[in-house]
Amino acid sequence: LKHSIHPQAHLDQLTEGILRGDRVLLGQAITLVESKLEKDALLAETLLEKVLHKTGNAFRIGITGAPGAGKSTFIEALGTVITGSGKKLAVLTIDPSSQLTKGSILGDKTRMEQLSKNEMAFIRPTASSGTLGGVAGKTREAMLLCEAAGYEIVIVETVGVGQSEVAVKDMVDFFLLLMLAGAGDELQGMKKGIIELTDAMVIAKADGENRSRASEAQAVFQQAFHFLPPSPSGWKSPVLLSSALHSEGIEEVWKLMLGYETETKTSGFFEQNRRSQRVSWFKECFAQELQQDIESIPALRAAQKDLERAVMNAAISTQVAARKLLGDYFTYIRESGS
Amino acid sequence: LKHSIHPQAHLDQLTEGILRGDRVLLGQAITLVESKLEKDALLAETLLEKVLHKTGNAFRIGITGAPGAGKSTFIEALGTVITGSGKKLAVLTIDPSSQLTKGSILGDKTRMEQLSKNEMAFIRPTASSGTLGGVAGKTREAMLLCEAAGYEIVIVETVGVGQSEVAVKDMVDFFLLLMLAGAGDELQGMKKGIIELTDAMVIAKADGENRSRASEAQAVFQQAFHFLPPSPSGWKSPVLLSSALHSEGIEEVWKLMLGYETETKTSGFFEQNRRSQRVSWFKECFAQELQQDIESIPALRAAQKDLERAVMNAAISTQVAARKLLGDYFTYIRESGS
Repeated sequence: LKHSIHPQAHLDQLTEGILRGDRVLLGQAITLVESKLEKDALLAETLLEKVLHKTGNAFRIGITGAPGAGKSTFIEALGTVITGSGKKLAVLTIDPSSQLTKGSILGDKTRMEQLSKNEMAFIRPTASSGTLGGVAGKTREAMLLCEAAGYEIVIVETVGVGQSEVAVKDMVDFFLLLMLAGAGDELQGMKKGIIELTDAMVIAKADGENRSRASEAQAVFQQAFHFLPPSPSGWKSPVLLSSALHSEGIEEVWKLMLGYETETKTSGFFEQNRRSQRVSWFKECFAQELQQDIESIPALRAAQKDLERAVMNAAISTQVAARKLLGDYFTYIRESGS
Repeated sequence: LKHSIHPQAHLDQLTEGILRGDRVLLGQAITLVESKLEKDALLAETLLEKVLHKTGNAFRIGITGAPGAGKSTFIEALGTVITGSGKKLAVLTIDPSSQLTKGSILGDKTRMEQLSKNEMAFIRPTASSGTLGGVAGKTREAMLLCEAAGYEIVIVETVGVGQSEVAVKDMVDFFLLLMLAGAGDELQGMKKGIIELTDAMVIAKADGENRSRASEAQAVFQQAFHFLPPSPSGWKSPVLLSSALHSEGIEEVWKLMLGYETETKTSGFFEQNRRSQRVSWFKECFAQELQQDIESIPALRAAQKDLERAVMNAAISTQVAARKLLGDYFTYIRESGS
């Protein structure tokens, strides 16, 4: 990020670059959005506001799955189908376990070799800050920037073991769970509730000697889905097989996604879901801003920690603790002047 | 609630009455906790603080299920087993659809006839305020009061169709889902994700011509559970059959619950879960206090509504909207003085 030039000029350059679809400037803009520096936060906000009118037009897809389920291979194969159909694709990955060099895409270059050479695709790991919401926060803003840069499909990839899945589910239109055939064992370590969030399950690596096991798993999961409550969209989550190795089942997954998009756009669910996602994101942002504010003030951060400990040990009622923290906060705001 | 006497004297009377296990005063205390009057809120807080050292000792059970699943009948049968084993039982019901007269237990008297005459049982519908969290807020405080009054088992009953299940799951030790045999149809209208929250599923009314359908459903759900991620406690959720009509399966459910209590207390999960519940409740309370504060100030409430609408229509970015609301709030706090 060049700060040798005037911030306003830099902002104009980024805005113009994004709207033109410049990949280097898009990458820089995402780095700006991910920055933890206070001066960058305000710039990032302004940038997002400037490109807001160009956002919202992509079909947003979340893909999750346990480590080792073959997400990168699957996304590479799916991405090749998507770009092959003439659509520009952005892939954002959230991987809390990987060490990312800020702004570098080297990590993913090695993971999705073909796709990273594809002119129609933009691949970008998004930094995973420690805080919940923080992870999603940056990814959501990065997604908006990709949309403004003209990407028609955005895939958000996440590892299905942490807190990030619910956040990702809440920022995408279609949520896919990738599994390995292993009849349930691979669910160990996955977050409870994740299956019920998925719009489709794909059993990957359904080839060779895995093939029959994959078919068995498909039948069992299909039955399990049948006994889960239906989605508010009315959509029934199917279970598909795929083999990235033999390019099998990938086109079917893409057709399914397009079918979902058409169906929910026709029913009105698509837009309704987007609207409610925006409102809950607003609430999330507000809570996050507030929490960041509290944590930036040492005395308040200490008070919060102390109260949390007291509440944990049932030494104080939650209500009293909450009111006390709010009181301390108000006092601080008043004393800090306007 | 008598306000003819001095608040402090009234508070002392309630505190002493609760700790003595006086049912009438316990009922009055719950009414106080549920009150929306500001002066009552502070009294309620003080009351809870006074009895805090006597709370936390009950085994807390959440029971949910679609309307018509026979929750009242099931709880009446289960409650008879529990009280028959010499344990004092409190039943708190949350029913957003029922019209409750504040402080009246008539509604439930008619629903659980036997149990309501039982000296070992205390039945109380808790008012469902419109706001999410509000529902749970009052129920959780009511639960604490029941514990202080010496109730060893607390059952929280909720209808499995709304937002309240997650809140209830987060305040109990054991969460049970009651179903009717109908091979999946009864899941219509239930909230997604609820099955993965349950520690046990009970298929009710498994008698007469329902019997074979219930057994079929049991087998299918057992298989479905097998393919859901395991609980962090390591507990595997079983599927049981029951017939309140023939008093069948009820003792088994109770034994299962006691088994869960023993197992999780031995493993340490029980207390660990309680501690994390208290912390998340603290955070919830803080967010709620703040939201109530914002809503109590007409200008801020209006600003929030306007921003929400703008965000919903993507006319403003969520980040800018959040920061604007926080800014307005700070300005108000500063101008309102200390």
